[in-house]
Amino acid sequence: MTSLGFVGLGVMGGRMVSRLLKAGYPVRGYNRTRSKAQWLVDAGMHWGDTPRAVAEAADVIFSMVTDTTALQAVIAGPGGLLAGLGPGKIYADMSTVSPAASRDLAAQVASRGAQMLDAPVSGSVSTLEEGRLSIMVGGNRAAFEKVHPILRAIGPKVTYVGGNGLAVSMKIAINLSLAVQMLAFSEGVLLAEKSGISRETAVEVLLNSVIASPMVKYRGPFVLRMPEEAWFDVRMMQKDLLLALEMGRQLGVPLPSTAVTNEVLTAARGMGLGEKDFAAVVEVLARLSGPTK
Amino acid sequence: MTSLGFVGLGVMGGRMVSRLLKAGYPVRGYNRTRSKAQWLVDAGMHWGDTPRAVAEAADVIFSMVTDTTALQAVIAGPGGLLAGLGPGKIYADMSTVSPAASRDLAAQVASRGAQMLDAPVSGSVSTLEEGRLSIMVGGNRAAFEKVHPILRAIGPKVTYVGGNGLAVSMKIAINLSLAVQMLAFSEGVLLAEKSGISRETAVEVLLNSVIASPMVKYRGPFVLRMPEEAWFDVRMMQKDLLLALEMGRQLGVPLPSTAVTNEVLTAARGMGLGEKDFAAVVEVLARLSGPTK
Amino acid sequence: MTSLGFVGLGVMGGRMVSRLLKAGYPVRGYNRTRSKAQWLVDAGMHWGDTPRAVAEAADVIFSMVTDTTALQAVIAGPGGLLAGLGPGKIYADMSTVSPAASRDLAAQVASRGAQMLDAPVSGSVSTLEEGRLSIMVGGNRAAFEKVHPILRAIGPKVTYVGGNGLAVSMKIAINLSLAVQMLAFSEGVLLAEKSGISRETAVEVLLNSVIASPMVKYRGPFVLRMPEEAWFDVRMMQKDLLLALEMGRQLGVPLPSTAVTNEVLTAARGMGLGEKDFAAVVEVLARLSGPTK
Amino acid sequence: MTSLGFVGLGVMGGRMVSRLLKAGYPVRGYNRTRSKAQWLVDAGMHWGDTPRAVAEAADVIFSMVTDTTALQAVIAGPGGLLAGLGPGKIYADMSTVSPAASRDLAAQVASRGAQMLDAPVSGSVSTLEEGRLSIMVGGNRAAFEKVHPILRAIGPKVTYVGGNGLAVSMKIAINLSLAVQMLAFSEGVLLAEKSGISRETAVEVLLNSVIASPMVKYRGPFVLRMPEEAWFDVRMMQKDLLLALEMGRQLGVPLPSTAVTNEVLTAARGMGLGEKDFAAVVEVLARLSGPTK
Repeated sequence: MTSLGFVGLGVMGGRMVSRLLKAGYPVRGYNRTRSKAQWLVDAGMHWGDTPRAVAEAADVIFSMVTDTTALQAVIAGPGGLLAGLGPGKIYADMSTVSPAASRDLAAQVASRGAQMLDAPVSGSVSTLEEGRLSIMVGGNRAAFEKVHPILRAIGPKVTYVGGNGLAVSMKIAINLSLAVQMLAFSEGVLLAEKSGISRETAVEVLLNSVIASPMVKYRGPFVLRMPEEAWFDVRMMQKDLLLALEMGRQLGVPLPSTAVTNEVLTAARGMGLGEKDFAAVVEVLARLSGPTK
Repeated sequence: MTSLGFVGLGVMGGRMVSRLLKAGYPVRGYNRTRSKAQWLVDAGMHWGDTPRAVAEAADVIFSMVTDTTALQAVIAGPGGLLAGLGPGKIYADMSTVSPAASRDLAAQVASRGAQMLDAPVSGSVSTLEEGRLSIMVGGNRAAFEKVHPILRAIGPKVTYVGGNGLAVSMKIAINLSLAVQMLAFSEGVLLAEKSGISRETAVEVLLNSVIASPMVKYRGPFVLRMPEEAWFDVRMMQKDLLLALEMGRQLGVPLPSTAVTNEVLTAARGMGLGEKDFAAVVEVLARLSGPTK
Repeated sequence: MTSLGFVGLGVMGGRMVSRLLKAGYPVRGYNRTRSKAQWLVDAGMHWGDTPRAVAEAADVIFSMVTDTTALQAVIAGPGGLLAGLGPGKIYADMSTVSPAASRDLAAQVASRGAQMLDAPVSGSVSTLEEGRLSIMVGGNRAAFEKVHPILRAIGPKVTYVGGNGLAVSMKIAINLSLAVQMLAFSEGVLLAEKSGISRETAVEVLLNSVIASPMVKYRGPFVLRMPEEAWFDVRMMQKDLLLALEMGRQLGVPLPSTAVTNEVLTAARGMGLGEKDFAAVVEVLARLSGPTK
Repeated sequence: MTSLGFVGLGVMGGRMVSRLLKAGYPVRGYNRTRSKAQWLVDAGMHWGDTPRAVAEAADVIFSMVTDTTALQAVIAGPGGLLAGLGPGKIYADMSTVSPAASRDLAAQVASRGAQMLDAPVSGSVSTLEEGRLSIMVGGNRAAFEKVHPILRAIGPKVTYVGGNGLAVSMKIAINLSLAVQMLAFSEGVLLAEKSGISRETAVEVLLNSVIASPMVKYRGPFVLRMPEEAWFDVRMMQKDLLLALEMGRQLGVPLPSTAVTNEVLTAARGMGLGEKDFAAVVEVLARLSGPTK
C-alpha cells in the first residue's frame, strides 16, 4: 500500500490522518508541537522528526497548515519538506494560499523531479467528521489519478479542476459565497426581527427555507448565540476575501457582493470582533439598526 | 370536513388545490380564466362564478395571486371575495404583497367579522410538487390552529410567525437571501472561470460545496444555460427587493448586500433582461468581465 | 411690470420674495402661517388670503413647499392655487417632488389653459443669500422665456433643461451626488484620522484639495461639529435618494454609489440620527471604526 | 541660497523644477532618460549623472516618480539617492507610495544621518501650471520648516500633517474621494440622460451646481468626450484605492463608497479600459444602462 506522509497535524490535519489510518494506510506525520500529535501516534501513526524526514520516507506527502507563512516554515530550509522530495514522489498541499504562491511552489517541487497538487478542502471539522468533506484538486492529471483513492478516504467528494493553482482559485470562489451568504442571512434575520418576529422564529423559518445551504445550517444558530470559539474567524475570512478581490482585479471580474461584505468584515474588526466567527457580521448590522419594535 | 374555497388557480394555486382534493377536502374554486381550471373541475373541484360565491360557500378561503393589483381585483367590488366573508370564516392569502397592504386587508376582513391570515410560501413549483413547500403564517393564533391541518396538506413545513403581516415580512426576508445568494454564486463562477477553470466544472464543484442551498442547486445550472421560461423573473425579484429595502428604511435596518444586488438587477433590466430568470445577474457580471483566459 | 404671486413663504420662499421685491416686482404672497410672512408685508408684499386669491391676482405664480403632500395642500380644493389659474397665466413650482407627480400636475394646469414649469433650485439658504443659487427649469420653452428674467432676480444661474418634469429629474441627479460626496469625504476624514492625523488637519487639507466642491466646503466642518439644526436632514436626503433609485430602476440605470450611500443613511436612521444633517453619515462610519491611534 | 537636487523629471517633476529655477534656486537634476530633461538644462538646471551625484551636491533633495518600484530604482544601489545622503541633508519624496513603504524609507534615511519628508501633491499638471497645487508634508517638524519656503515655490498650499508617512496617508484619503465623486457624477449624468435631458445639458447644470469640485470641473467634460490621453488612468487610480482599502482593513475603517467604486474600476479593466482616464467609470454604467429615451 502507498506509504503516506502528513505535515501539519492540527484540528483538520489530525482528523485527516485519523481517517487515513482507519482506511489502512501507513502514515508518517510531523507537527510543530509534537504533544498535540500523541493521540495519532497512539493510533498507529509513525513520527517524523522533520518535514524532510516525513517526505523522504513517503510516496505521497500531504501538508495542511494555516497560511502562506506557515507553509513557508515547513517547506523551506535544510529540514524542510522540499528537501525531502525527489523523482516519483507526489506532494499535495491542502492549505489555502494564493493561487500565485501555489504555482510558485509547484515549480520548485517540479525542479526536484517530484509533482505537486493543490488540494484545498471545503467544509469544517464537523463536515470532515461526518465524512462529507469536499476536496478540489489542481495539478497534473496523472498525479491526481494516483492520489485520488487516498483523497477519497479523507472526504468523499473529490473533484479535479485543472492545472496547478486552480484548486485554490476554486476554493476562494467558494469562500466568497460563504461570507456573502452569511451577510444576506443576517440581513434577513434582522429585517424579520425589527418587523416584530422573534429572532428564534426567524432563524427557524430561514433554516427550513430554500436558502438553507449547509453553511447556513451550521452558522445560522450563531446569530442566536455566538460560539465561544470561532470556527473560522473574521480575520481568516477577510484574508480569503482579499485574495478573491485581488484575483478579481487582476482578471477583470467585478465582485460587488464580495466587496460590500468585505467592508462589513472591516467594520467587524473596527468593532473589535476580528477573532470572532465571521457570523459576527450580524453584530455589525445590529449595532446600526434601530431598536427592536 | 371543512369546506374550502380557493381563488387564483394558476401554476401554484392550481397545484395546491390538486393536493387539497387528494387529501379529501371539498374545494370550490375560482379563476379569472375558467378554462385553465378545467383539469381541477375534472378532478372534483366545484366551480364558483365569482370570488364572492367561493367565499360564501366555504368555511376557509384561500387566495393565491401575483401581486397587490391582482389581489385588489379579486377582493374588491360586489363580486369580490371580501363581500362573501362573514362571522366565523377564515381567509388565508398566500400571495406576496407588502406587509402594510396585508395588514390593511386584515382590518377590512375583521370589520366583516371574519379573520384573515397571511400565508405566503417559500419554494417553487417543483418544491410544491415534491411536497417540500414551506408555508409561513401570520395572524390570529386560534385562526391559525384551525387552518393548520389544511395547510399541512399543501406543504409539510408550516410555521406560525406572529401577528398579521408578519408572514409576508418573513417571506421578503427570505427572498432577499435568494437574490444575494445568486449574485454571490455568479461572482464565484466567473472568478473561477476567468482563472482558467471551465464553467461546467466550477458549477459542479460549487453545487457539491457547503454553499449549495436548495436555491443554488435549482438555479446553479442556469449559469450554464438560462431557461427558456423564467421561474421567477428579474422584475418580480426586484419587486421583492424593493419591498425589503423599503422595510429596511422604515425599520432602520441597513441591508448592504441587498442594496448592491438590487442595483445589479437594475443593470439586468437596463440590458433588456427584465423578463429573464433572476439568475440573469450572471450575464450582467459577464458583460463587465475581461475575456476568459 | 409683470405681477407675481408666491405661495409658501418659508425659509427659502420668503427670501426669494424678498429678492423679487428688491428687484422691483409687485408680489402677492400666501403662507399657511401668516405671522411668519409679516416681515415681507412690511417690505411691501401684498397678502393673499388663499393660494387661489394669489393665483387670480397674478400673471406668474410661484410655489415653494417641502414635499408632495404639502404641494397637494396648496394646490387642490376650492381655495387652491389650481382653481385660480386660467389662460395666459404661468405657474412655476420650485419644490422637489417626483418627476411623475410634477408631470401630472402640469397636465392639470394645462387643462385650465395655463402653463406650468418645474423650477427646483440647487443650493441652500446661504447660497440664495449670496446670490449664487442655481435654478433648473422644465416645461414649455416659450413659457420659460417669459419667466426667465424673473428667475434671474432670484438666482443668477438659470438653465432650461427640457420638457415638464425634467428639471426635478435634474435636481434629483444633483442631490445624489451631494449625498455620495459627503460619504466619500467622511471615509477620507476617518481614514486620515485613524492613520494618526488630527481630524482638524484632515478637514483642512481636504477643503484645500481638488475635491472641495461648494457642498464639501459648506458641510466639511460639520464632521468637526455637527450643527444644532440640520440644513438638510437625513430623512429629507433619503427621500431624494429614494426618488433617484426609483428612477434608476424604471430607466434601467444602475446607481451603485447611490445605493450604498442610501444604506448608510438607513443606518443613520437606525442609530436615531434621522433628523440630523445628512453629514451624520460620518457618525455611522465612526461608530463602526476601531479606536483612534 | 539652498542648493537643491531633483530626481525624476517627468511631466510633474520637470514642471516643478522649472518653477524652482524661476524662483531663483540652483537645481541639480537627474532623470532616467536624459533627453527629456534637456529643456531644463537649457533653462539653467545642472545635470547630475546619478541620483547619488544629485544627492551629494545638494542640501535639499526631492524625488517624484510613479510608484514604489520606480522609487526603489532611484533610491537603492551604489548610484542611488540613498548613498548620496548624509548628516544635515533633507530628502523630500513627492511620489505616492504606501504609508508603510514611506516610513521604511524614512528609517533608512535617518540611519544615514539625514532626514526624510513625504510630500505628495494633490492636483494635476494644469493645477501645477496654474500655481494652485496642494502639497502635504509628513516627517520631522523642524525639517519641514526648513523646506517650507522651497515647497511654496512649487505650490502655494503647503500643509504639515504630522509624522513620517502621514502625508501619503492623507493623499490616499483625498484620492478615494476623487474616484467616488467621479462615479457619483456619472450616475447623475446617466440618470438625467435616460430621463430625457441631453447629456450636454446635464453636464452643464452639474458643473454649475454645488457638487462642482475642481475635480468635477476638470473631468466632467470627459463624459462628453473622453480625452485621448489619460490624466490619471484607471489602473493608477485603482492602485490608490487598493492602498486605501488596505489601510481601511488594517485600521478598521469601513469604506463602503470606496469599495463599490473600486469594483466599478475593476469592471472598467474587464472592459479593456484600464489605460483610459478614470472618468471611464461612466462607460461602465452606460454599458449597463437601458437605451436612452
